[in-house]
Amino acid sequence: MTETRRTDRMKLGGGFFHPTGNHVASWLHPDAQIDAGTSFRHYVQITQTAERAKFDLVFVADAVATRPGDLQALKRWPQYMAFFDPLSLMAGLAAVTTHIGLVATATTSYNEPYTLARRLASIDHMSGGRCGWNVVTSSNVSEAYNFGRNEHFAHGERYARAREFVDVVCGLLDSYDDDAFLRDRSSAIYFDPAKLHVLDHHGENFTVRGPLNMARPPQGYPVLALASASDTGKDLAGRIAEIVFSPLHTLDDAQALYRELKGRAAGYGRAPDQIKLMPGLNPVVGRTEAEAKQKHAFLQSLIHPDVGRSLLSTALGNIDLSDCPLDEPLSEAICVVGLRNGRSEGRQVVAMAREEGMTLRQSYQRFAGARGQRTVIGSPTQIADHMEEWFLARGVDGFLVQPPVLPSGLDDFVDLVVPELQRRGLFRTEYEGTTLRENLQLDRPASRYAAA
Amino acid sequence: MTETRRTDRMKLGGGFFHPTGNHVASWLHPDAQIDAGTSFRHYVQITQTAERAKFDLVFVADAVATRPGDLQALKRWPQYMAFFDPLSLMAGLAAVTTHIGLVATATTSYNEPYTLARRLASIDHMSGGRCGWNVVTSSNVSEAYNFGRNEHFAHGERYARAREFVDVVCGLLDSYDDDAFLRDRSSAIYFDPAKLHVLDHHGENFTVRGPLNMARPPQGYPVLALASASDTGKDLAGRIAEIVFSPLHTLDDAQALYRELKGRAAGYGRAPDQIKLMPGLNPVVGRTEAEAKQKHAFLQSLIHPDVGRSLLSTALGNIDLSDCPLDEPLSEAICVVGLRNGRSEGRQVVAMAREEGMTLRQSYQRFAGARGQRTVIGSPTQIADHMEEWFLARGVDGFLVQPPVLPSGLDDFVDLVVPELQRRGLFRTEYEGTTLRENLQLDRPASRYAAA
Repeated sequence: MTETRRTDRMKLGGGFFHPTGNHVASWLHPDAQIDAGTSFRHYVQITQTAERAKFDLVFVADAVATRPGDLQALKRWPQYMAFFDPLSLMAGLAAVTTHIGLVATATTSYNEPYTLARRLASIDHMSGGRCGWNVVTSSNVSEAYNFGRNEHFAHGERYARAREFVDVVCGLLDSYDDDAFLRDRSSAIYFDPAKLHVLDHHGENFTVRGPLNMARPPQGYPVLALASASDTGKDLAGRIAEIVFSPLHTLDDAQALYRELKGRAAGYGRAPDQIKLMPGLNPVVGRTEAEAKQKHAFLQSLIHPDVGRSLLSTALGNIDLSDCPLDEPLSEAICVVGLRNGRSEGRQVVAMAREEGMTLRQSYQRFAGARGQRTVIGSPTQIADHMEEWFLARGVDGFLVQPPVLPSGLDDFVDLVVPELQRRGLFRTEYEGTTLRENLQLDRPASRYAAA
Repeated sequence: MTETRRTDRMKLGGGFFHPTGNHVASWLHPDAQIDAGTSFRHYVQITQTAERAKFDLVFVADAVATRPGDLQALKRWPQYMAFFDPLSLMAGLAAVTTHIGLVATATTSYNEPYTLARRLASIDHMSGGRCGWNVVTSSNVSEAYNFGRNEHFAHGERYARAREFVDVVCGLLDSYDDDAFLRDRSSAIYFDPAKLHVLDHHGENFTVRGPLNMARPPQGYPVLALASASDTGKDLAGRIAEIVFSPLHTLDDAQALYRELKGRAAGYGRAPDQIKLMPGLNPVVGRTEAEAKQKHAFLQSLIHPDVGRSLLSTALGNIDLSDCPLDEPLSEAICVVGLRNGRSEGRQVVAMAREEGMTLRQSYQRFAGARGQRTVIGSPTQIADHMEEWFLARGVDGFLVQPPVLPSGLDDFVDLVVPELQRRGLFRTEYEGTTLRENLQLDRPASRYAAA
């Protein structure tokens, strides 16, 4: 991949997975906004900071249940225990920002397409075209229990449902043609009925007549994002995703996924540049490398053993670690079971633990801090070097920056790393457009009813 | 009812049923914000105007479908044809206001309690305790079609579902005790698990485990409003409503409903002052009576005959009026069918038409302008007189002011009528509190898990 790349087009997002920051112990850090999960003012602050830095977007994850698991760990690490409804949050942020994209997670498993289409259209209108939707499927049975179901949907079923859900949402957003609203007082005609379409969808999972009671949004559809990296997820990404947030740990893996996603998109008749790979990046920024390492070590020292054990146990397929000593190497029995039953991120840690003789504490520290996302620790130059390398080598189109502690970790990145990226000509100094699509260089999709 | 009433406690809301104003021809008025249905800036403007006037709240109605009916009428009167999702709108308005209550309509027929509880809790947190929920049931089959159903729920079924829905929402909002979040860094405990409750609801209509993934809102529950005046609606109001927006046309009717609602609330063990009757009021304000009448006549002249016919037809039980001449008295045949099949507001108009020999145009003008809500036309003094009389005679606790044209009709009311009410000591000059409950003098409900 030696072809020259335009270097001023790196995309940056702010990923706010946990209100107090992405590190598992973030809330224990004295800099963290301790009540962030219920503080709208906090989200206004960090989003305005990201906008000041000319980030393309901010992004929040979601779950439609409290996190399942041991309350002794949950009480010490409250991710998803108290968390704004993402679309409500984005609607509020639309009112106090002007350029930054607002990407919210919403599940296709426990929503109705009509309701979600309307919410997305409302936010896109309210923000002047800055809405994004991270399409997810719910895999956690505790979510099912909140919506009258005894079990969650099976994996394939979830993705089939997601595909149909997205299709129905986009169909509803096309209810009115872009030029349907004449608003002509002289003829007393507000809209042209010939430009209003009844979807009349009858599918496997949904029956929805339409039309949607909202004008087609400024962006046509919200920018569609996906996080998943499973094979089914990749296929759906190739079909519909405009942003993919998959976690990536090596440049080789990034380049492979980059090529695969662009190829899959092309396979579905899409231009390869219409799908952007923006993996998570957890930057621990210091003025010097030593300061960054010290910051990271302090954060790691804040991880409570209850939390570390619980997270590692989940990643290894709910293996019981309660009797496992903290400061002795992981037993071979645990490694074997973990490699067999664990999730991909858990299997990675166990493989490392086996190779390096890591203890339980070292294992959960390796894993728990950023929960399978890539952490980069260093000076602004070092972090910019890393980002530049991955970007120029076509491993990524940009990054979803997930500060370890909020708001201070974002301030560090914005004040120290962004100017370095700008000096190198890798990142914008002004927004190119006013909509999220314009800034991400994504086409505005035509309505399905538009003449070809 | 001669008992003296504290006179400084009238409640006022801004009712924005139609984005361009409540009069059916509002969008044709040159003062109307013509693209109001997709203009967030418009809603910011009118809500900030209402807040400047110290209104208790703003309120938006809703439908989860485009309005059914003849497109030749719909294209000329676009209510519900392009309309923000109310809760998205309120989330946005929370960010740019500080004191005014934000009351959104959301149906219990086509929502999930978990999702709605979370949205309401989010808005209440975002606004610092200013969220209200107008609880409605969907009666229109076109809404059913958008949610996978072939028919709407029957009347009794809808209300049973609404009652259970509200109960589940409140139960979910009680998931955490008010003091559950300790956020104590020294002990590394974010919340006390003993103060987290699993609802585990198994009912006729809903099965919801919980807990909700949000802290209990500042107001405990959002302020609960109801619009309906049917017998089933009144019973539900007595049980749960804190605001009732029923349309009322005479002081006698207002006093009767006022007594009935307070009595029904008492029957359910509630204090009578915990339910506020705030009927709609469509004020056409002029500096003089003559100017007000002229304003109203101009608005009435803007009603297109297609729209007038269509609205009257619907109110009379979908009677065919297409061949009925505009400027001749309503035929006896139409009156008989209308009285038999019409809705209550339609029957009233027909009874008046019969008595006064009104033509079709006069009939739809009588009805269509404000669609069954009370219109008061006059000088600031005359309108304040009317409001004072109804308030002091215990016909109402306040009014939902529905300006005929937005933003100008609201400006008129705020600039001309509010100062007159304030001069008379009938309305506040400063907010008493910061939450909607505080301003409405409504108690903050205790959690169902609180020790009695």
